[in-house]
Amino acid sequence: MKQQSLLNQSTTVQSILDWLHTFGKSSDTGNTRLLYSNDWMNAQNALFDQFQQSSLTPYFDDVGNLFGRVEGMNRNHKEAILVGSHIDTVIDGGKYDGVYGIAAAWIAVKELLEQHGRPLHTIEVASLCEEEGSRFPLTFWGSGNITNKHKQIVSTEIFDHEDVSLYSAMIEKGFGLGRYPQPYRGDLSHFLEVHIEQGSVLEQDHQDIGIVQSIVGQRRYTIVVNGKSDHAGTTPMNRRVDAMESAASLMTSFTQFARRLDDDLVSTVGKIEAKPNTPNVICHQVTFSLDVRHPSVTTLDLYEQEMNTLIAQLEREKRVNIHVNRWTNVQPVNMDDSLVELAYKESERLNYQTKIMHSGAGHDAQIFGTHCKTSLLFVPSKDGISHSPKEFTAEHHLRAGVNVLKSMIYTLAYEKRSSYHDELPLS
Amino acid sequence: MKQQSLLNQSTTVQSILDWLHTFGKSSDTGNTRLLYSNDWMNAQNALFDQFQQSSLTPYFDDVGNLFGRVEGMNRNHKEAILVGSHIDTVIDGGKYDGVYGIAAAWIAVKELLEQHGRPLHTIEVASLCEEEGSRFPLTFWGSGNITNKHKQIVSTEIFDHEDVSLYSAMIEKGFGLGRYPQPYRGDLSHFLEVHIEQGSVLEQDHQDIGIVQSIVGQRRYTIVVNGKSDHAGTTPMNRRVDAMESAASLMTSFTQFARRLDDDLVSTVGKIEAKPNTPNVICHQVTFSLDVRHPSVTTLDLYEQEMNTLIAQLEREKRVNIHVNRWTNVQPVNMDDSLVELAYKESERLNYQTKIMHSGAGHDAQIFGTHCKTSLLFVPSKDGISHSPKEFTAEHHLRAGVNVLKSMIYTLAYEKRSSYHDELPLS
Repeated sequence: MKQQSLLNQSTTVQSILDWLHTFGKSSDTGNTRLLYSNDWMNAQNALFDQFQQSSLTPYFDDVGNLFGRVEGMNRNHKEAILVGSHIDTVIDGGKYDGVYGIAAAWIAVKELLEQHGRPLHTIEVASLCEEEGSRFPLTFWGSGNITNKHKQIVSTEIFDHEDVSLYSAMIEKGFGLGRYPQPYRGDLSHFLEVHIEQGSVLEQDHQDIGIVQSIVGQRRYTIVVNGKSDHAGTTPMNRRVDAMESAASLMTSFTQFARRLDDDLVSTVGKIEAKPNTPNVICHQVTFSLDVRHPSVTTLDLYEQEMNTLIAQLEREKRVNIHVNRWTNVQPVNMDDSLVELAYKESERLNYQTKIMHSGAGHDAQIFGTHCKTSLLFVPSKDGISHSPKEFTAEHHLRAGVNVLKSMIYTLAYEKRSSYHDELPLS
Repeated sequence: MKQQSLLNQSTTVQSILDWLHTFGKSSDTGNTRLLYSNDWMNAQNALFDQFQQSSLTPYFDDVGNLFGRVEGMNRNHKEAILVGSHIDTVIDGGKYDGVYGIAAAWIAVKELLEQHGRPLHTIEVASLCEEEGSRFPLTFWGSGNITNKHKQIVSTEIFDHEDVSLYSAMIEKGFGLGRYPQPYRGDLSHFLEVHIEQGSVLEQDHQDIGIVQSIVGQRRYTIVVNGKSDHAGTTPMNRRVDAMESAASLMTSFTQFARRLDDDLVSTVGKIEAKPNTPNVICHQVTFSLDVRHPSVTTLDLYEQEMNTLIAQLEREKRVNIHVNRWTNVQPVNMDDSLVELAYKESERLNYQTKIMHSGAGHDAQIFGTHCKTSLLFVPSKDGISHSPKEFTAEHHLRAGVNVLKSMIYTLAYEKRSSYHDELPLS
């Protein structure tokens, strides 16, 4: 059956998202589309067909990333501009996360083709195979393969909850067998991504567009406070080594310091476990998580130093023993300055309320950020909700993202002398 | 088979405890002897026989409390002096808790009979049926029935973990059917109990005997802090309503205030639960327990007032909603002053290092304390360990408790004019 193009004059961004929602619908507004699942495959195949209907040449790479390519007229310029986001969702996620970036790229490129014909430079719309880490214990499988950051990963040694290996899930869908081009791309000049904010800064500040200057560095710690279990009634306060008392004191100090050090610093204790966890027994052990994020390594280092000072002080004062394990240390990634400038100029020109900000959450742009010139745009998200069927962004905001993206792509791909290319060999 | 008396010249307190340990042995030094279990029944029956061998007239009451009675010579004086403790244990408890008080009473009375013959006043050694609440969700079943404090309890409506009702467990062992005297005792002049400390104050202070002046009042609270779940990376600190941050701050304030208010006040957060309890999500709810104990109601009231002030302040400052449920409010109970004086005098006369203290744990003496003149003595407990197979008290300390108890019983039951009786009708 010949597919009809979904894109026409009256197509809204929301209607594209509603269509993509039909692949792996988990509820009225919820989606579960895990890497290499049938729903995921159906979505990628349907997009493949739709790209074809929109004059984009579709192709997969060997891990299942899908591209819709528009060949640039300038044949001497081999580099491509990649625009898009990821097709996978978390379990029972929303209708916007990931797919909005694909829909926005597709609509923008389709409209540019209709209004301006073929571009000078090659553009590809990307539906990246995986970002969320919801099926296998790894994230950014799509962008990580394109940028070679996942080359150490052995796909036969990674398993989902049902003990299916990443490798066998991949070959079951026809990938990983060399039938498609290898995913690594040395030919990318730019990566552009638009995403819902996953926070409520834009909404609360009444902004239309957020331009990300950097994606925060992220450190996660597990802190174990060891004290001594004792009877809660018969042990005087001055003879206790109460792990909970010390843990509470640390949590309080950590938060106070975070609030004082820098407005952009966030510090969160989200998880706690006490032993033996009984009302009338003094805890001998309290374990808690600490998640700290900031766009600068220096600030993260300062925070960590103070953390260690506070811990050493408490160990002396309270006779507890405290163990710190830093199990995540993601470096901050800056977006390309010239693209921040371009995005800001275009957004202002289109009369959008525009805010330059950082991203506290990870996105594919974080992986591309050290590989090619990368830009990340945000649109507001109602109540900052994400990874939930309650995700919602109004059409005018979805469209604002498309419009800024479209203007940026136009500048990069259509303008003969664009200052946003380092070298532009003219034909 | 005619039973042999266990008590002879060379009997140590420890040997009696080792013998009782054979009933419901859970490990080399551990004991599980739950109310109305076979092990419990065997222990009570064996004690029944042993009391008989020791010239104590044994009898059960209708809930299974066992008494070994020595009739006083003064027939006009109807009141009895009760000395003892409880026979039941927690699950995998130690060899000392409860039974030491029975063994000490039995040895003391046996020796008094041998050395001084029949007393003026009636003495009963008591092996109370239950104190721990380890099988059924209630405590002090023995002393509570003797003092009528459990008269509201309907034994058919209380069940153990295997859905056996207190009533059917009781009748299975022949109690609760009116075959034995009703447990209420209006004829008690005194209750004397000796117990291991269940704390390490005596050990650390190198004391032989602790004389309890009061058993602390105990309030237990469940505190629920309600905030708002948000993304740990994308929600700036000044926009969060972080339940964990507020809970940590409260826990810290509560402890600091407790340490400042009164040296005898203890305040413990032993249990905590966070929701959703994930490292990268701000908690929307944190629930924690608070256990507060002090010998004076005024101090407990002051603590509670400050607690509520701190909570109200935090609710205003942090926009959290905090719910407090006080689910336990046990009143402090004073031991009899004249008996504190007697115990102190006898302990000093016997050259023991003697400390007057309060009890942070509950004991049968707490129930008797508002029913008749009551005394509670402590002996040191190694490392303050209790309710564990690791419980240990050395023989010289076990014997010290027996000696002080024996001197007290002598004064109360043998001396013609004892100032420790309010009225002593002479024969």
